[in-house]
Amino acid sequence: MKSPGTHLKTLRDTAPLVQNITNFVAMNVVANAQLAVGASPAMVHAIEEAAEFAGLAGGLTVNIGTADAGWESSMVAAAQAASAADKPWVLDPVAVGATGFRNRLAARLLALNPTVLRGNASEILALSGEVASGKGVDSGDPVSAAEDAARYLAQRTGGVVAVSGAVDFVTDGDRAVRIEGGDPLMGRVTAMGCALTGVVGAFLVGQKPFEATVAAHACFGLAGAIAAARAGGPGSFGPALLDTLHAMTPEQLDAEAGIAAV
Amino acid sequence: MKSPGTHLKTLRDTAPLVQNITNFVAMNVVANAQLAVGASPAMVHAIEEAAEFAGLAGGLTVNIGTADAGWESSMVAAAQAASAADKPWVLDPVAVGATGFRNRLAARLLALNPTVLRGNASEILALSGEVASGKGVDSGDPVSAAEDAARYLAQRTGGVVAVSGAVDFVTDGDRAVRIEGGDPLMGRVTAMGCALTGVVGAFLVGQKPFEATVAAHACFGLAGAIAAARAGGPGSFGPALLDTLHAMTPEQLDAEAGIAAV
Amino acid sequence: MKSPGTHLKTLRDTAPLVQNITNFVAMNVVANAQLAVGASPAMVHAIEEAAEFAGLAGGLTVNIGTADAGWESSMVAAAQAASAADKPWVLDPVAVGATGFRNRLAARLLALNPTVLRGNASEILALSGEVASGKGVDSGDPVSAAEDAARYLAQRTGGVVAVSGAVDFVTDGDRAVRIEGGDPLMGRVTAMGCALTGVVGAFLVGQKPFEATVAAHACFGLAGAIAAARAGGPGSFGPALLDTLHAMTPEQLDAEAGIAAV
Repeated sequence: MKSPGTHLKTLRDTAPLVQNITNFVAMNVVANAQLAVGASPAMVHAIEEAAEFAGLAGGLTVNIGTADAGWESSMVAAAQAASAADKPWVLDPVAVGATGFRNRLAARLLALNPTVLRGNASEILALSGEVASGKGVDSGDPVSAAEDAARYLAQRTGGVVAVSGAVDFVTDGDRAVRIEGGDPLMGRVTAMGCALTGVVGAFLVGQKPFEATVAAHACFGLAGAIAAARAGGPGSFGPALLDTLHAMTPEQLDAEAGIAAV
Repeated sequence: MKSPGTHLKTLRDTAPLVQNITNFVAMNVVANAQLAVGASPAMVHAIEEAAEFAGLAGGLTVNIGTADAGWESSMVAAAQAASAADKPWVLDPVAVGATGFRNRLAARLLALNPTVLRGNASEILALSGEVASGKGVDSGDPVSAAEDAARYLAQRTGGVVAVSGAVDFVTDGDRAVRIEGGDPLMGRVTAMGCALTGVVGAFLVGQKPFEATVAAHACFGLAGAIAAARAGGPGSFGPALLDTLHAMTPEQLDAEAGIAAV
Repeated sequence: MKSPGTHLKTLRDTAPLVQNITNFVAMNVVANAQLAVGASPAMVHAIEEAAEFAGLAGGLTVNIGTADAGWESSMVAAAQAASAADKPWVLDPVAVGATGFRNRLAARLLALNPTVLRGNASEILALSGEVASGKGVDSGDPVSAAEDAARYLAQRTGGVVAVSGAVDFVTDGDRAVRIEGGDPLMGRVTAMGCALTGVVGAFLVGQKPFEATVAAHACFGLAGAIAAARAGGPGSFGPALLDTLHAMTPEQLDAEAGIAAV
């Protein structure tokens, strides 16, 4: 199993083109996070071109944060095109559980078997059909409560499932790791989960899904912890996070990543 | 009448879920401003779920900055659902007076009697049917010129009307206060009025509308003044404002708020 | 020929209202860049009002970054209204060459003869019908490779064409200049080309197109170089760029602009 730093080095060396269909709140943040780690982001969601572009890009992320019926068509078309071209794609089921539309959309996308499913504990519990206590986009459940649901979903989709929180959990249904990092301040900054989804999409291109997802979480979590220690609050945290992601070296990531097999 | 600091403490203690239908320029800023003061924002505007979500959230903000006919349907449905569920909602009639579409949309939403109407002087004048001299989204009129219009609109809607500018004015048609704060630098930063609308929406949940609106303006104005003194320009002002809102204590707000009864 | 500083002074003195139909990633950045240089931005793209507003505004920018068929109608209507009212408008053909939809849309807008066409080298090559090697929104070609294509497009449209990169190139088909400035760090920050397009739109109002476009590139490039020297990475670069644009004086711009006639 290659180290997180080796994954980061490959990402920097290949600078993959990543297509993102994400929400309006997060678009700028996701693009800047992908640029900071070394990828080339493209926000392409129009139904007129989303599937065509998925054939050009190295990978895709789909985030339902502000989706509607029109965006649903683009998401489905792009995800199908990515799968057909053997490109990895990530699903971020933002606030699933909150409304009927969101539940139907997330279920439809999950049935397309994303390479990686990434969410908070309440979202993963809701997707697995269990009772969750999320409030809007925020999780009301600890990561530990969603570990079984994550394993179940990984086995059902054949993909990787990542649960983000105080300690992240990543599983492919067989293997599983926990990853320390981040900072409570990140809960006071919008689109942090969306940015992590974007970073996962960048690490995935041309790399093994489970290992790449672990590396992405380790990189983002370490950068978050460093940036929080330097920031004066949630406003200065955002710029500090991007500076830290950009300055992160493979050696630093390997030395400081908090990964533990379960 | 409870103090502004008491309102801030209640907001922090309850961390209300606030739904926002706002414009594309402001979405990220509004979400981060609400998080910084202690609320849990959710940007939910799709017609497929906007009204359903309004029943779940503690309050709603509606901002017409980049609306079109599709968004109009969502705004009306969400505002009606909020009213039906006795949830407070705020209307921000961005750039009303500039185009026919904007005038019709703002009038339609105003007829739904928002709990709070918040705008700059030109917008409040335009909504009241008087001659205004706004330029796009920027006010061309001083707050003092819109005080009578604000009283008139408050009496007509039965709600609170707030006019933002160098000195803010808040009235419920009977009582009125002026609030000092802010900084001219905020006129060189986009979406500051939208962010204030979001902060008003956060303070409103579970609190009395007139007092909560005054507290929100005092909090935002004080944070703006402090942040402007620390910032090196309009770019560093944005992060400084969020840091300051996050660090504001109820005691500081009570000690430094510039509120004067009219 | 008036100096860049003289153009900046005129912009600050007149504070023109500029309408922008730009992409979701860039809206906040474009608005803040225009505010920082002294303009009054308005993001107005709804088909219900885009053309009406173009008659009110002093100028218009059209950026196809996240366009779809609905936005295409607004872009065409606003560009036609701007032209009919003798208002200058800028076209930014983001990622043209990537998809068939994007190629058709850019060609249709180009046929409306924008006052200024601004893009990276791959975009200008693609628009001129030559082979380009762009990757998503990023250029794969040096500016020098697109100078002939820029001259050709300027002659065909009767407007100004600007190619942005390590050294910018601006031509009206007859005259041409190269402009030094910027920093490689800007390639790691999203929406920098879009922000430059917004700054060009601000300089254009009431000023001669070729000279104003040169002045805008000189101003943005100088600010970018100064901000990059002060920033700790791509995250802190954003706020530093806006602070620097806001603090730029006409005298500083005239003293330090790196403009050379070709």
